[in-house]
Amino acid sequence: MPGIAHARRVRVSAPGGIGNMGPGLDVLGCAITGAADTVELEWSDESYATAIRIADPGHPDLPTDPARHAASIAALAVLDASGSRPKRCLVMRAKKGLPLSGGQGGSAASAVAGAVAMNALLGAPLDELALLLAALDAESTVAGRHADNVAPSLLGGVVLVRALDPLDVVRLPFPRELRVALVQPMQRLRTADSRAVLPSSVPRAVLVQQSANVAAMVAALASGDLDLLRRALDDRVAEPVRAPLLRGFTDAKAAALAAGALGCSISGAGPTSFAFASDDASAARIALAMRGAYAAAGVDAETRVARIDDRGARVENETAGT
Amino acid sequence: MPGIAHARRVRVSAPGGIGNMGPGLDVLGCAITGAADTVELEWSDESYATAIRIADPGHPDLPTDPARHAASIAALAVLDASGSRPKRCLVMRAKKGLPLSGGQGGSAASAVAGAVAMNALLGAPLDELALLLAALDAESTVAGRHADNVAPSLLGGVVLVRALDPLDVVRLPFPRELRVALVQPMQRLRTADSRAVLPSSVPRAVLVQQSANVAAMVAALASGDLDLLRRALDDRVAEPVRAPLLRGFTDAKAAALAAGALGCSISGAGPTSFAFASDDASAARIALAMRGAYAAAGVDAETRVARIDDRGARVENETAGT
Repeated sequence: MPGIAHARRVRVSAPGGIGNMGPGLDVLGCAITGAADTVELEWSDESYATAIRIADPGHPDLPTDPARHAASIAALAVLDASGSRPKRCLVMRAKKGLPLSGGQGGSAASAVAGAVAMNALLGAPLDELALLLAALDAESTVAGRHADNVAPSLLGGVVLVRALDPLDVVRLPFPRELRVALVQPMQRLRTADSRAVLPSSVPRAVLVQQSANVAAMVAALASGDLDLLRRALDDRVAEPVRAPLLRGFTDAKAAALAAGALGCSISGAGPTSFAFASDDASAARIALAMRGAYAAAGVDAETRVARIDDRGARVENETAGT
Repeated sequence: MPGIAHARRVRVSAPGGIGNMGPGLDVLGCAITGAADTVELEWSDESYATAIRIADPGHPDLPTDPARHAASIAALAVLDASGSRPKRCLVMRAKKGLPLSGGQGGSAASAVAGAVAMNALLGAPLDELALLLAALDAESTVAGRHADNVAPSLLGGVVLVRALDPLDVVRLPFPRELRVALVQPMQRLRTADSRAVLPSSVPRAVLVQQSANVAAMVAALASGDLDLLRRALDDRVAEPVRAPLLRGFTDAKAAALAAGALGCSISGAGPTSFAFASDDASAARIALAMRGAYAAAGVDAETRVARIDDRGARVENETAGT
């Protein structure tokens, strides 16, 4: 019976990732190893006005109102979809491993972790698609209605969002040797500002180029043709209008390509930029070259080298008992 | 040494196909078994003002001016690119197996056959990319600058045109069991009229949907996920504006889907329509259902069931001697 608690406390981590992968605006994303957001939910005997009390939002800038935090919104959506009416309150503690407004899918990871944690506590009444819808609900509230971060954070790997209504996501094959250089410049770019510059319409010629490049990325990932991946990672819609908002990016991209990157673009709505590489050493060289270019433009940047995370969200710890 | 004749006469056939495959406007096409265009080139001792004399253009409506026939334009482009300066004239005879202005890639097939025939006569000085450029030259002159018919006609299979400048085409994997119902209604639709209705720009939301569907088609063809193929074969740009020009198409599409088609859309610039199926019997049922729907709308239609042609253009006959 749904609603029976299978654990007293559960902790779930969900990876960040790259949304808007190259030309795949709103449709192509991947999960990345390393930094992740973590959400812990615990049944409590406290009486509280709402179903969830946020004991720790994970960051001083994040809300403690459960109706405004990505993780609790998603958890509440799972609770609602499950039909359970628990008599007790839940206490939530979040840990932000991913930057806020970084373009690394942080809000999506929090939403996914919250959804998966609630589902685990309830004895897994929801399937993956229902969890995805709950996380998408939360992402829509705090960031915008797109699934190219929540889907890979939940499922792992590289994900194509074929449609939002009804939601239709496809996990894509990808070459295991692929590496990612992730570069986070110390600059702020609000997601809303980054979306505001997107054109409301595009010429048909751009549609043709962009759809050909997204399709070629899928073909390249499936066949492991890394040179095709490099040619296909060519965004004609978002990158041209966002690059001017991101001091240093254009130079960093040129440095990445000169250092042998298999394409380079802006991650999500920025400011993080990413480049693909065929091995760790090459990714490290590319990250260094990009950081150097940002530094020359007067922008400090943190870099890391990662792989595509094939696992997605995972329950890290369950504590038994009701 | 290029320019030495390896054969006195060569005959080449090139398959037709489906351009603008579903959402893949100008970027996705496939070659289809069955009807093909054939071009024969033969060295002659005639003296003639141009390098090629057209003895048979293949159809009364096709020009005998070698500067205006797709096959001879492509053949001349190959001659030019090869750098040969033959002292003799060539005589060309074409056979049109494909309909004129049918949306089955007829002009592309003629261009490809002309290019491959000339290359064979010259001892194959050009590689595939150079042949493709020659055929694209011809297609640009007679139909428009797009490669989603010439590339599959030359290479066979399903081809993604990633870019035109410089030309970058990718042969895609596809499920061998795929069948095609091809339905040619007895109605005229000039390619120019069919292109004139295309929107000059599209809303960003349509760009996102369309690129996601093209990408999903590539994923579906690679993985053999035929249900995904059906969902992805959803054109939001060309089909909505072309369908009103094609009496009976909307009903034929509904009939195809009701009969179990894995997607249905307009082939190339029309008027031919196509549907995918998972086996011959299903394709035959779908073709029948589509013909019935056209008939109910007062339009006669010819149907055929075919496979994806994996071979592309081929030399059918070479006659030795100079």
